[in-house]
Amino acid sequence: MNFQAELISIGNELLSGRTLNTHGRDLGEALSAIGLQLSRDTTIPDDIPTIGSAVDEALDRVDLVFVSGGLGPTIDDITRDALAKLLGQKIIIDQPTVEYLKSWYEKRGRTVTLAATRQAQVLESANVLPNSVGAAPGQRIELANGKTLFVLPGPPNEFNAILSEKIIPWLKETYADARPNLVSTVRTKGIGESDIVTILEEAGFAPKNVDLGFYPSMGKVEIRLTANPDHELQLVEAEQTLHKLLTNHLDLFD
Amino acid sequence: MNFQAELISIGNELLSGRTLNTHGRDLGEALSAIGLQLSRDTTIPDDIPTIGSAVDEALDRVDLVFVSGGLGPTIDDITRDALAKLLGQKIIIDQPTVEYLKSWYEKRGRTVTLAATRQAQVLESANVLPNSVGAAPGQRIELANGKTLFVLPGPPNEFNAILSEKIIPWLKETYADARPNLVSTVRTKGIGESDIVTILEEAGFAPKNVDLGFYPSMGKVEIRLTANPDHELQLVEAEQTLHKLLTNHLDLFD
Repeated sequence: MNFQAELISIGNELLSGRTLNTHGRDLGEALSAIGLQLSRDTTIPDDIPTIGSAVDEALDRVDLVFVSGGLGPTIDDITRDALAKLLGQKIIIDQPTVEYLKSWYEKRGRTVTLAATRQAQVLESANVLPNSVGAAPGQRIELANGKTLFVLPGPPNEFNAILSEKIIPWLKETYADARPNLVSTVRTKGIGESDIVTILEEAGFAPKNVDLGFYPSMGKVEIRLTANPDHELQLVEAEQTLHKLLTNHLDLFD
Repeated sequence: MNFQAELISIGNELLSGRTLNTHGRDLGEALSAIGLQLSRDTTIPDDIPTIGSAVDEALDRVDLVFVSGGLGPTIDDITRDALAKLLGQKIIIDQPTVEYLKSWYEKRGRTVTLAATRQAQVLESANVLPNSVGAAPGQRIELANGKTLFVLPGPPNEFNAILSEKIIPWLKETYADARPNLVSTVRTKGIGESDIVTILEEAGFAPKNVDLGFYPSMGKVEIRLTANPDHELQLVEAEQTLHKLLTNHLDLFD
């Protein structure tokens, strides 16, 4: 079992400049917090062959694949069809979702139409993940090779609701051995990124088992240290060394 | 010559939830405006083999590949090395960039360090694209197979400055035949997406050569019609039909 996940977002509007895609950030943050890792984030157009090949390649690389978008009632919503074709599965109508859609529409003073009930279409092997804030449900599809495919609606509030209510709890239980990386941050100000590098290189600073990330912005530099929980001591030592080496440049009141 | 482009953004911070990646939206918008099309947007970690394979696959699919991030002076900045390895090219120091970096640092009351001058490293065949708002320049690399690779720094203000100042003008000249799609928008309110679909389906509305996108939010639905400029008449007809069919639901005062 590996701890890596990929995200594939589907939608022409994400590639034309109309809509900013925030799923990668939100999913990356949610997975990191439980010790899993988003290892690739891909956005593709509403095109059945492209969806098929992109999902297939992701399932080759990692155990967990998230697909978002294209689950609505309109003709540009083709994700279900693309996945059914790729996986050789039938599309079925999920009756509890039909009932849910009826009451969802009634509450809004509307009648559920045939078009609306298209959103109750799921893959035959799907575990349906009810959507508490919108119409189309999510789906968890456990494949014969042990890999798991999650299918989520595109609107960020629906994506995030199903993720936090239905998927993260399942992942925490299923990947109970996963442990989040330890992260610590050293913030500096009034010194450039390359001057920091010079100081660290002259001091021979090259911590083992600790990843360093440098994020400059507006006269400040954030240094992020990341380590596996087995290497907590090395992380703490690296952080202390940075504090010593950069003592005159620390941004302590952030 | 095809009109499709792919973007590959590099950086662990884009996959951990630390940083929201806005390049896909900005590049997608800029390319659409000149008749080119962003056809895939991929974010990957700071890892040399992953960068190599992702860029290689993108160059297989399309004529224009944009790579962003990992061009700073620190040890997590490995994009140049990954591309040099993939393309079998040497990395050289661009002397005009060294001079620029010297004056850039001097203006900020700092001395340019050896670490800082790493940002003047470019691929041997690169056309250097000066950065008017930051340190590391962009690069345009024209490959023997007629494809073009653009390399851009990660910070959005630098990415966008080099894009608009150096790359879009070059693309407009090089792809002078490209014509932007025609786009028009019909906005509705007080009617659900699936009710709109029902109305359109009952009327047999299925315009040829016009792509439809439905974007619901907060009681409103935006319908975007997109067509090749050869099909302007069909786009106008489709828009007029939508106005008739949805006449009681139009959101005219947006």
